[in-house]
Amino acid sequence: MKREIIAFQGERGAFSEEAAYKLLGRNIQVLPCPTFEAVFESVAKGKASRCLAPIENTLAGSVYENYDLLLKNDLHIVGEVNLRIVHNLIAFPGTTLRNLKRVYSHPVALAQCNRFFSAHPKIEKVPFYDTAGSVKMLAEERPVGAAAIASRVAASYYHARILKTHLEDHRENFTRFLLLSPKAVVSPRASKVSIVFSTRNVPGALYKCLSVFALRDIDLTKMESRPLSGRPWEYFFYLDFVGNIRDERCRRALDHLQEVTNFLRVLGCYESAKR
Amino acid sequence: MKREIIAFQGERGAFSEEAAYKLLGRNIQVLPCPTFEAVFESVAKGKASRCLAPIENTLAGSVYENYDLLLKNDLHIVGEVNLRIVHNLIAFPGTTLRNLKRVYSHPVALAQCNRFFSAHPKIEKVPFYDTAGSVKMLAEERPVGAAAIASRVAASYYHARILKTHLEDHRENFTRFLLLSPKAVVSPRASKVSIVFSTRNVPGALYKCLSVFALRDIDLTKMESRPLSGRPWEYFFYLDFVGNIRDERCRRALDHLQEVTNFLRVLGCYESAKR
Repeated sequence: MKREIIAFQGERGAFSEEAAYKLLGRNIQVLPCPTFEAVFESVAKGKASRCLAPIENTLAGSVYENYDLLLKNDLHIVGEVNLRIVHNLIAFPGTTLRNLKRVYSHPVALAQCNRFFSAHPKIEKVPFYDTAGSVKMLAEERPVGAAAIASRVAASYYHARILKTHLEDHRENFTRFLLLSPKAVVSPRASKVSIVFSTRNVPGALYKCLSVFALRDIDLTKMESRPLSGRPWEYFFYLDFVGNIRDERCRRALDHLQEVTNFLRVLGCYESAKR
Repeated sequence: MKREIIAFQGERGAFSEEAAYKLLGRNIQVLPCPTFEAVFESVAKGKASRCLAPIENTLAGSVYENYDLLLKNDLHIVGEVNLRIVHNLIAFPGTTLRNLKRVYSHPVALAQCNRFFSAHPKIEKVPFYDTAGSVKMLAEERPVGAAAIASRVAASYYHARILKTHLEDHRENFTRFLLLSPKAVVSPRASKVSIVFSTRNVPGALYKCLSVFALRDIDLTKMESRPLSGRPWEYFFYLDFVGNIRDERCRRALDHLQEVTNFLRVLGCYESAKR
């Protein structure tokens, strides 16, 4: 049986790959892509059937580039998964905590492991383009005294050793990933809706938009704004709310929202991840 | 007379320096800093009396790091200025449009000049750490056939030539900068208020917060959200609105907002920039 191809950004072993396995199981094929733009394109061009894109991290914030790509592309959100980010210190035989001199990783990952570096002031942090990519580099070049910070999946993929786990300063470090598909599929179990809209240029415009949800006791879970290109100081608003678009209450809220917006698009309706 | 010292991020000639002159005139001294964190610190430690920090660009979006630094530090917004971003092609004698082979600049600036690079497919884009920093490098190393993309102020500071102006694809390219001070000063002409708050964990919390403004016909000009560290899937909201905190209407709105928030801080009340 042919396995589904899932695209993601980063090298093999990226946190996105770990998230894909958590959401879809191991029986998938993965397609690593160099950029988020290439991830969206690979699905649009049929090289992958779906893709997984990080949309927010509970410490670093939203992945704004992916918000913009959701609007530019015509993919639909069909699922989501929250991954606890566990940073592992990964090395190859010959390198131990004792002879460790340099640690490679993505700057965001290095910044999230400050406690470890404070406790080991002689170890140098070396910024690298990718977490899993730094393990790949170690696998190829085998420099002595060098390690990487990356996911468990990266250690296993490159047959490396985990010298130490839970290097992250904060345990409350989660990344939310969206599963995107060229086809809009709404399961009866779907419990979350993502939309994007722009408000009319009237006083209290945003308040009026939020009222369509408040009046119906619909809970909002996330709101994000991004600039509207070519119209300085105007914004697109991205909103996630609890519900299924097939429910009367949600349909009415979206009908009502249409009346008070210039532009409105449903990005997807999907089963929400466990928090 | 001693001139006031204004800190900003980037090399001499950065767009922030151009913005400082636009807002405060030429009779200032400037203190370039390597990072935004260093900019805030230079004011906290008294090395500069005030600083200028970019907060949003109409194409690229908010400067999220500065939103976070506003909350972490105890500086007050005392002014703002909008700068039209004009990208100039800058070179030193010996380099002309004819023998031009490489153009250095910050990746965001290079990405905003796609039309120029499409029209000149043989010219290579070279990402550099800073716009003005790329002019500085050319001034020091004088490579033949190389130019930089940076501000008019950078060309003048390093005594370089502008080979071509308005390289930017979109004319509607503005950056909004905030003037920050250790002292809260509210001028009677102040017409804009910036606040940050976190909502209570109740249904319709954000709607209730916005209602305190809508009920009083107070216009919102910007809203931004950032993650609340250590409390996954909760957010800080940054809001700009039209008004002066000494006005009865604004004071009542903020009083009312206090009732429905967990946390509320006024970041500043200042004269709004011309749009």
